[in-house]
This record gives sequence, structure tokens and C-alpha cells, in this order.
Amino acid sequence: MNSPSGGVSPNHAFVVGLGLIGSSVGFSLRAQGWHVSGIDIDCSRAERALELGAIDRIGEDVYADVAFIATPVASIAEVAKSFLASAQNDDVTVTDVGSVKAAIAKSVDDPRFVGGHPLAGSEQEGPDGAGADIFVGSTWVLTPTACTDPAAFARISALVSSFGSEVVALDPARHDALVAVISHLPHLTAANLMVLASDALVDRAVLLRLAAGGFRDMTRIAAGDPTIWPDIFRDNKAAVLEVLDDLLARLTEARRMVDSDDRDALVEVLDRAKSARRNLPPRVARPEELVELRVPVLDRPGTLAEVTTVLGELGVNIFDLEIAHSAEGPRGVLVLSIDAASSDEARGALTKLGYRPATRRLG
Amino acid sequence: MNSPSGGVSPNHAFVVGLGLIGSSVGFSLRAQGWHVSGIDIDCSRAERALELGAIDRIGEDVYADVAFIATPVASIAEVAKSFLASAQNDDVTVTDVGSVKAAIAKSVDDPRFVGGHPLAGSEQEGPDGAGADIFVGSTWVLTPTACTDPAAFARISALVSSFGSEVVALDPARHDALVAVISHLPHLTAANLMVLASDALVDRAVLLRLAAGGFRDMTRIAAGDPTIWPDIFRDNKAAVLEVLDDLLARLTEARRMVDSDDRDALVEVLDRAKSARRNLPPRVARPEELVELRVPVLDRPGTLAEVTTVLGELGVNIFDLEIAHSAEGPRGVLVLSIDAASSDEARGALTKLGYRPATRRLG
Repeated sequence: MNSPSGGVSPNHAFVVGLGLIGSSVGFSLRAQGWHVSGIDIDCSRAERALELGAIDRIGEDVYADVAFIATPVASIAEVAKSFLASAQNDDVTVTDVGSVKAAIAKSVDDPRFVGGHPLAGSEQEGPDGAGADIFVGSTWVLTPTACTDPAAFARISALVSSFGSEVVALDPARHDALVAVISHLPHLTAANLMVLASDALVDRAVLLRLAAGGFRDMTRIAAGDPTIWPDIFRDNKAAVLEVLDDLLARLTEARRMVDSDDRDALVEVLDRAKSARRNLPPRVARPEELVELRVPVLDRPGTLAEVTTVLGELGVNIFDLEIAHSAEGPRGVLVLSIDAASSDEARGALTKLGYRPATRRLG
Repeated sequence: MNSPSGGVSPNHAFVVGLGLIGSSVGFSLRAQGWHVSGIDIDCSRAERALELGAIDRIGEDVYADVAFIATPVASIAEVAKSFLASAQNDDVTVTDVGSVKAAIAKSVDDPRFVGGHPLAGSEQEGPDGAGADIFVGSTWVLTPTACTDPAAFARISALVSSFGSEVVALDPARHDALVAVISHLPHLTAANLMVLASDALVDRAVLLRLAAGGFRDMTRIAAGDPTIWPDIFRDNKAAVLEVLDDLLARLTEARRMVDSDDRDALVEVLDRAKSARRNLPPRVARPEELVELRVPVLDRPGTLAEVTTVLGELGVNIFDLEIAHSAEGPRGVLVLSIDAASSDEARGALTKLGYRPATRRLG
């Protein structure tokens, strides 16, 4: 299967690894008319990807214009180098989707390679959870280096943008430092908090019964699949150890504050945390046109349905929704981002139903 | 204002401290025909509580049958002892609503006193956020000691049950150990994670933009009011230091696992965390009649509305709802508890819309 010169027009792609992300890349490419060959170490997974239409052919394609390496993190560098060595297309560009980048960038030192990391996970593994929609609205980090051919970067950037992703270009080491803070450290901490609670010598049934929304929120990510993590921690060891040491130092200092009744220092930390958390940027575009509506509610499904139904009937678009659980008990605050123009109407309708909404501008 | 003998029939109550909980106690008592006197160190707050109807009289009532001490934790013991010393009703029972119990129980060593802790918080402070509904469905811990008159315990237990709370009786020290694990330690950890991310030397704007639902979940409780915490940490110092040391030891051990690539140990911890988190008891009664429906979704408000509307149209009751965000990216899983009898119908309707729901029994 020969392939004409590369370019932006749809052509031949090759996907290695047909899990959730690899299969979703296949679906996204095929939706735009690309021919997609794919392989997986698990033959039945490749068969399933073909059956579902994530790829249109099982097998390697050394003539491919673009190759996506979507294997587990531990094998990405070897697979990428081996494909680059055998590639027969002079204009080939190779990218990967691993969640750690510096080690791979160092190992695959080739102008035709651009590292990447789509921030689009799911608890479902394999082709059955995949779809062209999973990248829509997500962030796709690309990590070009000094060695990367700018044309290769431009090609991958245009391609993943066409999947509906927003591209953020970052230095590989900076990417790794960022995910250590926002993903790897939180995962390790949530897991250890959950095991600590589970091991507690106090009556487990009572403890878990008292565990309200706040505790559930904090430990939720610990419910995810453990098997991907050891490779991530190994490949991002330096950054993970650095932030883990940082957290250990902060918790040790917090221990000192508690032990010595250092009220001022405690309030200062908690105050800084409060304003940082409240000022997390909204997950929405054009925040200046939106207001945040905070509605104290009983944390019950019926309430959520009532509030969203009322706003729906008024034609108010909800751009974001969070349930901020209390640390204790069944109270919570529904935090909604809505059009600034609908703010008064929404407040009025909710107040009439007995709610006590408060608003603040986001922009 | 003299008061006839105490008992279960509605009579005279006295509430000290008219914040959210104190005012809500007032509303709950008045809804059942009690006369409620109340005071607050802040006169305007007492006026407001009277205006809203949380109390029907401002002032002390030494003849009250029941007194609720709802002041900040630091002053509860002194207020309770001083009221008990001046009480003119032989059958008076005094309780409190503080979130730490052992220090108060030790200090107020009186058969007429029963410690309590309603697990019903809210971010709104003061009478304006209060209402008789906030205790409905909540857990109210009571902490009688060997010294407590069983009749006093029975009276408070019956009273708070009549507010719609479920009473759990615990030893004061055991209560404190429990809340250290499920509330105090998580709060301290979330705050420190949030400040760490905010202080990170990496580009803050990029970091926060990449921070997906998992990070938001983990740090959400850090958005709460800081001022209540120093007293809580002081009064529950021993238990908080114990669980903080436990977490520090676990994170130090996790550091060793990461540093030495101890794959097996990491997987074991993460696996234990996963099964403990997935087996948290559902927040619903009669779990044996329910199934858990897990629906992978794009974590967007429109999706939530679509799923809840479809189930609403089918007459399916949603008993619980959680959004389990991915560690990274905009994917998540909607976790719903619904009637086992509606399970097939709900799955069918959602599958028809292109969702891929999975179910498991809860009971």
C-alpha cells in the first residue's frame, strides 16, 4: 500500500495500541476520511477495533503519513524509534499519547517526532469506550523540543485541533512538572487517605456512614484503575518526588501549627487555600459573559433535578455545574455558571421556590 | 416565665448562639410548637433570628426544659456549665452542637448534659441560611458518658429524631477519632494541596487550565470558611495529630515506593484504595433494592441534564448521583443509584441515545 506525499489532506495513518485513546484517535481520523491501519499486542482488541470501525485495516503501515503511538507509557519510546527506523514515507510524522513526556522526548530524539498528551481519560478501557467525541473540548498538550521539525509540529497540531481539541504547547519537563501537581500527587494522596480511613481502628461501618460529600469528593479519584500508575510514577519520578516532598514538608509544618496551637498560621494557610480554590478559572469559555450562581441545597438528587429543570424552562443555559459538598452532613452548594443576562431571572425563579441563591461575576 | 415539668410534650427551649445550626434548631423546635428563647453575642444576629422566626423571644430562659449550646467550639463548655449552674428547672437537659466532643464531655461533667454533633453544615453562616429542613435525613451524633442521666439522653435523642435526624450514639473520644479521619485530616490535606498548586513555580495559568475534575474534586472542601478550624484542631489535637502522623508515614512510604520503582507495593496500595472507595456504602436507604448505573459521559452540564431528563420521563427515581471525574480531561462517569426494577428500562433508553451504561447491584 503505497502512499502519496504527506500534507494536511486526509491520507494514511497508523495507530499502535488500540485502547481507549488509540481507538478514539482512529475514530477521529476516519471521521475525516483518513485510512487507518492499526495494531495491538492483544489481537482480539485489534479485531474489535476493526469491527467497531476505529480502524479500517489490521496491520502495520510503513508508508503512513502520520503515526500515533498509543501503547502503555513504558513501551512508547521503543515503539516510536522502531517505527521511525522502518518508515518508508519521507514526510512521516510520529506522535504519542503518553501521560509523561520528558523521558520519551529524550529517548526519541528525532525531528519527525512530536510528543503529545491528550487530557481525555475515561474509566472504560479498550475500543468499546472509544469514540470520535472524546477529544471535543479537551486540552491536547504537545511537547516539541529544539530538535523537532516545525512542520511536523504544525501537522500534528492541525490534526488534533481538527479532532476538537485545544492545543497547548509545553516544554516536556514543564508538562511533567504540571501533571505531577494536578494529577499524580493528588492520586497518590487520595489513595493513601482512602486506605487510611479503611484501616482506621475505629468502627469502619460507622466511619463510612458518617463520611459525607467532602470525604467522598476527596477520595473519588482513588476509585480509578491502579495498573497505569506504576509506569507513570517511574517515568515522572523526579517531578513526583519533588511535589511529594513539598506536600510532606507542608503537612509537617501543618502538624507543627496544630501541635503548637498556632492559630494565625493555620488561618493564613486555610485562607490562601480558600481564595486559590475559589479563583480556579472556570471551565468555560468567555467567563466575562457569565455569572456564578451559588445555591445552598440539601445534597439530594431531587434538588439537582428541580434546579436544573427550572432553569431549563426559563431557557437559561448552564455552562458549568459543580456540587460543593459540605465537609459534614447532607448540605451542599450547587455552583452553576450561567449567562450574565439571565442572572436576575434565574435568581428570581429560584427565590420563589424557597432557595437562597447568591451570584458573583466570573469575568 | 415559669415552666411546668419537662417531658416529651412541646415546651420551653433555650438556644445559645444563633448561627446556622442554632437558628435551625430554633426553627425545628418552633415547627413542633415549642417556645424558643435565644441569645447571641451579636445582638443584630439575635434580632434577625427573631425577625425570621427561628426564636420567639430574645433573652435567657433559666426555666427552659431543654437548652442547646450552639456557640463556637471554644466557648461551649463554659457556656454549658454556667447555664447548668443557673438553671431553675429540675428536669432541664442541656446539649451542644460542637464538632469536637471529648474535651467538652470531660469539662461538663454533669448528668443533665449530653454532648451532640449534628452533621449538617452549610457555607452560609447565620440565621439567613437556617431552616427546619437542614436536619432532615442527616446524622446527629450524641455522645453520652457514664455520668449522663439515661433519661436526659433519651429526651435529646427523641427530640433530634423528631427533627428528621438519624441518631448515632458514640463515645466522645471515638467520635473525635472518626471526624479526625473523615473531616479534619481531609480538610488540612486539601488546603495544603491547593496552596501547593497555587505556589507551584510552573506557569500558574496553564496549570490551573489543565486542572481537570479530579483535582477540582480533591480541593473542593478547601473553599470553605477557615475561621472555624483552629478551634477544632485545638480541641481535637490528639486525634488530628495521630491521623496526620499516620498520613505522613503512608506518604513517606509511598515516596519510597516511587523512588525505588516498587511496582508491586504501589499497585497493592492503589488496589486497596480502589476497592475501599468503590465499596463506600451508598448514601441511600435499602441499598438491596437499588442498582448502581455507571454512565461514561463527557463531563458537561448538558449531558447531566439529558441523562436525568430521560430517566425522569421514564419515571425512574434517582436516589443518588455522583459525577466521577477523570483524573485528566473532560471525561467522567455519572454514577446513579436507581430502583433495581427500573434498571433494564433505564439502560435501554440510555443505550438508544448512544450512552454505554453499566450496572451493578448495590445490596
